[in-house]
Amino acid sequence: MAARPDRGEVASYIPELAGVDPGAFGMVAIDAEGRVAAGGDADLPFSIQSISKVFTLTLALGMVGDLLWRRVGREPSGNPFNSIVQLERERGVPRNPFINAGAIAVTDVILSGHQPREALGEILRFLQFLAQDETIYVDRAVAESEKRTGFRNIALANYMKSFGVIDNPVDFTLGVYFHHCAIAMTCRQLAMAGRYLAHSGRIPSAGSSVVSPERARRINALMLTCGHYDGSGEFAYRVGLPGKSGVGGGILAVAPGKASIAVWSPGLDANGNSHLGRIALEKLARRMGWSIFGTEPA
Amino acid sequence: MAARPDRGEVASYIPELAGVDPGAFGMVAIDAEGRVAAGGDADLPFSIQSISKVFTLTLALGMVGDLLWRRVGREPSGNPFNSIVQLERERGVPRNPFINAGAIAVTDVILSGHQPREALGEILRFLQFLAQDETIYVDRAVAESEKRTGFRNIALANYMKSFGVIDNPVDFTLGVYFHHCAIAMTCRQLAMAGRYLAHSGRIPSAGSSVVSPERARRINALMLTCGHYDGSGEFAYRVGLPGKSGVGGGILAVAPGKASIAVWSPGLDANGNSHLGRIALEKLARRMGWSIFGTEPA
Amino acid sequence: MAARPDRGEVASYIPELAGVDPGAFGMVAIDAEGRVAAGGDADLPFSIQSISKVFTLTLALGMVGDLLWRRVGREPSGNPFNSIVQLERERGVPRNPFINAGAIAVTDVILSGHQPREALGEILRFLQFLAQDETIYVDRAVAESEKRTGFRNIALANYMKSFGVIDNPVDFTLGVYFHHCAIAMTCRQLAMAGRYLAHSGRIPSAGSSVVSPERARRINALMLTCGHYDGSGEFAYRVGLPGKSGVGGGILAVAPGKASIAVWSPGLDANGNSHLGRIALEKLARRMGWSIFGTEPA
Amino acid sequence: MAARPDRGEVASYIPELAGVDPGAFGMVAIDAEGRVAAGGDADLPFSIQSISKVFTLTLALGMVGDLLWRRVGREPSGNPFNSIVQLERERGVPRNPFINAGAIAVTDVILSGHQPREALGEILRFLQFLAQDETIYVDRAVAESEKRTGFRNIALANYMKSFGVIDNPVDFTLGVYFHHCAIAMTCRQLAMAGRYLAHSGRIPSAGSSVVSPERARRINALMLTCGHYDGSGEFAYRVGLPGKSGVGGGILAVAPGKASIAVWSPGLDANGNSHLGRIALEKLARRMGWSIFGTEPA
Repeated sequence: MAARPDRGEVASYIPELAGVDPGAFGMVAIDAEGRVAAGGDADLPFSIQSISKVFTLTLALGMVGDLLWRRVGREPSGNPFNSIVQLERERGVPRNPFINAGAIAVTDVILSGHQPREALGEILRFLQFLAQDETIYVDRAVAESEKRTGFRNIALANYMKSFGVIDNPVDFTLGVYFHHCAIAMTCRQLAMAGRYLAHSGRIPSAGSSVVSPERARRINALMLTCGHYDGSGEFAYRVGLPGKSGVGGGILAVAPGKASIAVWSPGLDANGNSHLGRIALEKLARRMGWSIFGTEPA
Repeated sequence: MAARPDRGEVASYIPELAGVDPGAFGMVAIDAEGRVAAGGDADLPFSIQSISKVFTLTLALGMVGDLLWRRVGREPSGNPFNSIVQLERERGVPRNPFINAGAIAVTDVILSGHQPREALGEILRFLQFLAQDETIYVDRAVAESEKRTGFRNIALANYMKSFGVIDNPVDFTLGVYFHHCAIAMTCRQLAMAGRYLAHSGRIPSAGSSVVSPERARRINALMLTCGHYDGSGEFAYRVGLPGKSGVGGGILAVAPGKASIAVWSPGLDANGNSHLGRIALEKLARRMGWSIFGTEPA
Repeated sequence: MAARPDRGEVASYIPELAGVDPGAFGMVAIDAEGRVAAGGDADLPFSIQSISKVFTLTLALGMVGDLLWRRVGREPSGNPFNSIVQLERERGVPRNPFINAGAIAVTDVILSGHQPREALGEILRFLQFLAQDETIYVDRAVAESEKRTGFRNIALANYMKSFGVIDNPVDFTLGVYFHHCAIAMTCRQLAMAGRYLAHSGRIPSAGSSVVSPERARRINALMLTCGHYDGSGEFAYRVGLPGKSGVGGGILAVAPGKASIAVWSPGLDANGNSHLGRIALEKLARRMGWSIFGTEPA
Repeated sequence: MAARPDRGEVASYIPELAGVDPGAFGMVAIDAEGRVAAGGDADLPFSIQSISKVFTLTLALGMVGDLLWRRVGREPSGNPFNSIVQLERERGVPRNPFINAGAIAVTDVILSGHQPREALGEILRFLQFLAQDETIYVDRAVAESEKRTGFRNIALANYMKSFGVIDNPVDFTLGVYFHHCAIAMTCRQLAMAGRYLAHSGRIPSAGSSVVSPERARRINALMLTCGHYDGSGEFAYRVGLPGKSGVGGGILAVAPGKASIAVWSPGLDANGNSHLGRIALEKLARRMGWSIFGTEPA
């Protein structure tokens, strides 16, 4: 099912995504004091897809620290999210943790020494903890569909395995990957989960520290340069906030020191990023003076 | 002449750069109130090289506005600064204004309808105005050397010309390009020239507006995602400031709302960016809490 | 186990190939009258590997004719045998039937509508018929090793599947592919099997026609332009005969109208072709005036 | 001016080629005894364009022998004739002497130590000698047009120069290149000129030897694998003769030991090769049993 042209096209490669209402729109922003501004379908769960990569990156960095960068780079790719060309040139090492290949390599690190079920549980519990909401769940139907049709991702994983970049059996790593991409969250839950990135690694209301200030900054930097595939430059240019999009139409954005924002609208632009979501964030950032590149309103 | 390993290698493709003292180091930061902190060789002129691309971009946007983006993209390239591969794939349109091909296309826009001499004069006067210093000059020996050995850039320009992306005679466009890259400035002059980017398009002390706040933000965004060639992700990750480097060893960095910073150390890392310059900026940004990705000191 | 430098390196990616005696050398030529000239280890079976692709191509053309060319091209690739880059550029359609991706697509055509066991049986029986020798067999240990370590081929197959170029389940297609590459033959058997290509599609002694004269010519043309991966130009330049090499160190060469030749020496050159095998063929072709590019002895 | 669809499109990048009559067709074959079969516009001169590369290759091999292969490879490129991508990957060394970059490198070798005028004279006299016809000439208008619009070739030459693959000033090398591509010949002259390739390096009627039998074979091998850009596999598959095409619509083909053939029809297929010319050669080769891949008529 396609949205109206001015909303972009809803992802249609699996029925579970193709069937989503193209008219859905939700947005939630949470500031440093924990105040919540919510609008539209703020409490409707959607498939977070690649947004999950921010959280698996955080987990993997917590497990192996900077050793992670032996497996994956930190540079924008200049190629679509599922390109395999770059992998051949750079001997199986993905350019960054947010393209598919890189996120699969990160998942492989989280899996290491565990059963797929355990690794997935850990990822899910991390999100539930961050969002303070135990109702966050994995949409098994989405995960199964991804698995059944994910030949490109299977290709990427086996290709990396041929270079020794994947340690675990490819099926195990991809099983966890497909499932964490299939986690369903609402805008409210997602904005809650992103607070530690907006506040130097801490959850202000809880007083608990998730990562160090430096690590939070660095994850934000990666989101800014690589968070929107081959539309990352465009997002930085227009919105001016670190963010990570998913093919389900969600975007998590971070205004450092100010707010964690989640937006959802299923129609996608040519780069696979939410079309209305990006526009909404651009307007919000401008009105609030949240751009990290200069704070004065236009 | 090569620097010590821990300083990186001085550019050696032309004698004028190869002969620079590898031990040179200068740094200047200027804050919103115009206070200047200077250290080391702050008043020694060096070849700004690709840093000039920030100022030609600003000029070209002033001339043609968003029409510029028909000639050049806004995405990180994922390739070295002088790669020609991407140009073939995207029919002569460079990925962004900071790789060589993109900067040549920008220069072609500035040149349009003028003599090379006039266009170069305009660029030079713009820099003299921004820095409030009429002693800034073009190092003709550097320009001549670049021209004599710049076969790769000649190839890039002719390649774009074959796709109709360059309007003027290639020799004219490249003449201006080689000369504006050969402009010599001190750290003090460069930090002065960058103030408008740190302060929403205005020069605080002068009260004059150079560009709109939105345009300043957007140039900063481009510097963040594309300012350091294939090391842009790394610079964002480590330093967390918009910046633009040159093969002469200079870097201009911008802490929005806070400071304009110039640093110079001729030894380069593998991506062609100043090795010590990057480290100095990383330490400064951390100590001052200037990172755009989170302000709390580590 | 590595051969002496002047013999090239024995393939070492699976133990079954790595353990082959690097000093082995065999050669057999059979002329139009069926006279056999044999030398060295002419009756020692070796893994024919990619040489099998000539016979699967023949079978697939017999099954679907020119429809095959919707799935695979006829141009040299200009890339190593296992490159995936070209597949991305050309949307999953391999350049020719002799690079790995192309041969997997051909195998998929043969498999269509059959069980893997049946398809493999058909390939094996075809070779036994051509060579008039029912002792030709599949080396299961080799096939199992290929399957266990063939991540690159699994990637290629899944990548093509993502573009709809592979019809059958990837595991089925690859199962047949790995097994037909693991067929073991002697030089004598291989030279026998290649006779139809040397004699306009007919087996002279048997009087039976395998393919039309035109098809035999065309398969020879494909061997000439694409039979040695990224060393195809070199082989044509030096040897001047259509040929197909395998990573097991075998080469099948065809002197149209004159002879079918098989040579085996396990040491490989940088392009993965038998080093001594190529030299032996070059000397033979020159002495006999067999080059297709001019018959006068040098 | 475009030909009818079934004749392909006439090259239109310069007015001198665009103005050629799309209905022109000529063909000449000369056998070992010097008998000439001619048809159609056999005596109308046309721009031989890239066919000249066969003769410059012959000259350069005569000058520096196998040292030539330090500057240029012998493998099919798998890319269009004017691609620059491969040059970046292989550090300025073109894949073969028949793509534009490779032919420019060959011209640079011929030029070495001479004035452009002398080098061009040598090439022209070589063709006049081979064809026994002093009326063969350079079409200056074509050469000037090529020079004025040849930005892609200027890019290729400068790119190679940046890697040190071109010795002479780029303008000199390109001047000779554009002029030898602008040589005008008739089918009769071209078939005459190609006789040495069909007859082991000798001109049968004259009794004189141009190159050794081995060199003639090797040039034929290069024409077979690389003579038709990215349609080389197709030409080998369909026609089965070594050949070299030009964008002017000419093709020189060689039936070793049998005949030298020239055909001309200006309409081009998608790969830039004469559409009707290829078809005519395919029919001729089949009827005469001239394919190098098997002699029996279909």
